[in-house]
Amino acid sequence: MDDRIEEHAEVLVDWSARIEAGDDVVVSVSEGAHDLAVAVARALGERGANLVSTYGSAEVSRAYLDGHDGEFDADPDHELALYENADAVLSLGGGRNTSAMADVPGDRLEAASKATTEIREARMDTDWVSTVHPTRSLAQQAGMSYEAYQEFVYDAVLRDWASLAEEMAEMKERLDEGDEVRVVSEGTDLTLSIENRTAVNSTASVDDDSHNLPSGEVFTAPHAAAGEVTFDVPMTVRGRQVRDVWLRFEDGAVVDFDAAGGSEVIGEVLDTDAGSRRLGELGIGMNRGIDRPTDSILFDEKMAGTVHLALGRAYDACLPEDETGNESAVHVDLITDMSEGSRLEIDGRVVQRDGVFAWEDGFE
Amino acid sequence: MDDRIEEHAEVLVDWSARIEAGDDVVVSVSEGAHDLAVAVARALGERGANLVSTYGSAEVSRAYLDGHDGEFDADPDHELALYENADAVLSLGGGRNTSAMADVPGDRLEAASKATTEIREARMDTDWVSTVHPTRSLAQQAGMSYEAYQEFVYDAVLRDWASLAEEMAEMKERLDEGDEVRVVSEGTDLTLSIENRTAVNSTASVDDDSHNLPSGEVFTAPHAAAGEVTFDVPMTVRGRQVRDVWLRFEDGAVVDFDAAGGSEVIGEVLDTDAGSRRLGELGIGMNRGIDRPTDSILFDEKMAGTVHLALGRAYDACLPEDETGNESAVHVDLITDMSEGSRLEIDGRVVQRDGVFAWEDGFE
Repeated sequence: MDDRIEEHAEVLVDWSARIEAGDDVVVSVSEGAHDLAVAVARALGERGANLVSTYGSAEVSRAYLDGHDGEFDADPDHELALYENADAVLSLGGGRNTSAMADVPGDRLEAASKATTEIREARMDTDWVSTVHPTRSLAQQAGMSYEAYQEFVYDAVLRDWASLAEEMAEMKERLDEGDEVRVVSEGTDLTLSIENRTAVNSTASVDDDSHNLPSGEVFTAPHAAAGEVTFDVPMTVRGRQVRDVWLRFEDGAVVDFDAAGGSEVIGEVLDTDAGSRRLGELGIGMNRGIDRPTDSILFDEKMAGTVHLALGRAYDACLPEDETGNESAVHVDLITDMSEGSRLEIDGRVVQRDGVFAWEDGFE
Repeated sequence: MDDRIEEHAEVLVDWSARIEAGDDVVVSVSEGAHDLAVAVARALGERGANLVSTYGSAEVSRAYLDGHDGEFDADPDHELALYENADAVLSLGGGRNTSAMADVPGDRLEAASKATTEIREARMDTDWVSTVHPTRSLAQQAGMSYEAYQEFVYDAVLRDWASLAEEMAEMKERLDEGDEVRVVSEGTDLTLSIENRTAVNSTASVDDDSHNLPSGEVFTAPHAAAGEVTFDVPMTVRGRQVRDVWLRFEDGAVVDFDAAGGSEVIGEVLDTDAGSRRLGELGIGMNRGIDRPTDSILFDEKMAGTVHLALGRAYDACLPEDETGNESAVHVDLITDMSEGSRLEIDGRVVQRDGVFAWEDGFE
């Protein structure tokens, strides 16, 4: 077995999920993630953890949803019991076709999702971590060869996480002390208040409430957005490609929008509810192992030299205890490249210019 | 998708497991059983049942067991809760390598098995059914091409089960009314008492306490075996090939044995405990869709024109309520071809001659 797969499994089990002897672990295995599942199973055995593996097959899910009449039972006992009794859930993504569920009607998916609210909450109450095994399907989605994509994934995942966590702590400190963020780039000049908000240092470890591997971002919950922003990193939203989305904010809400591609889906997102026109997240990508967008939010939003904003729901961890943040049924991330002609300011002080952080070599 | 896969799924879900709306179903998917899993998921969706799919990967199990130190936690909560809350468990066998676990030490397997006794009992308390999807690995084990093996499996599985169940009921009636069975073939002349024993009509349906698909055998719990028997259907026992096993019984117990191949493993089996030298089962294969041995007990023991005997544990269903049958840690099936120069008698009356049953055309 490729050493990198074993290293990936060890980072996942030890750094990310902090698995210990006696932990009851569920490992969800996507159709293409078999090899990573084998390495994770060995690591779990070595730690003395207990393993149930589930089959996270998009084709099996599609067939089930397609056969069903849409009147789903609420939170089936057996599935709920599995997750209520689990200490950790490790999701190994990586299928064989990113469009496998493309023909499942949206209302069927939504009904299935609504019927499993308690199950989802039980899963979120565990030390859950999502990662992906590099598959040919994901390489294709990224527009890359399989070998190059494998390199890309392992560069992103096999970091010195303790060292990156320290660097991100520096950014968190500046955000926590600051009141106002300004993002300036081509087509972007946006001001956001972050007064009284707490940033999350997303270290790819459940110990820091960070549940993605790779991670490598610092995020907070902004409010009172004003100005304009252009998201020039191409991506897929709800199965549709969006390009150069442009938003204008006044008093925290979107008052105008445009896009070079996919403006229809952005319009749908904005019209979801009251909160979907407001921002739930400002995230700063800090993972230097991610050197290009690959049309996968798990990677793209952590890319060093990018900033992302999410329309919709804010994370509680960023808010004072007595405050509820922006509420919405959606949370849609959009990404801006900050590598050229760009700066990120906190209270007027530049913390990143042309993709280089203030504490890095080459910062001017 | 191959129509036969969809038909297989429907027989499994409807005839075998009797799935109804609202049932909480666990589907275990072996590495090579993806296509059957997709068809089963659709059928479960159509019936309004609830689905959790587990990944029944031999390679994942091997890696876990190989990594573990062997001190297993007893019945992990999450796995136990899953099966305690399940109504049915459908195991879709069919891996990619029948020897995938060949290098896991026996004591490791045994320790893992002992640590999951309650989980196994919880699973057996459901409407469980085991079947296999035809894979290249199983074709290889059978010494057959992939296409021919697919034909073979579907011939065995896609029967008119209601009609076969009626035919088997005829055999069950004769066994239930009879006191003594005599099996005569080349190298075989064995007399068994079946007085006060009840035969099981193994119809491949949980409604008849039959949990294999395919099935198609009638079995009972004999005692007081006397005489000799030669098992001329080749098979693999504990990973080792056995050929032409010969046993001599006196007063119900094996007093002498020999084999053209694998006599060592037969010796091991016989020496397990007091019950392993006695018979736990007499089974009569009645599935005409199974026309050859394929070195898989799921199929071989149901082949019409064969009789099998098991050394070791008897099934409770065959015994009077106040009687315990033969007890043993083992249950090892061995098979005799009855298609030529053979007869099966109940109380002196021939019920099968040269593989033809008394009620069939061609019986003389």
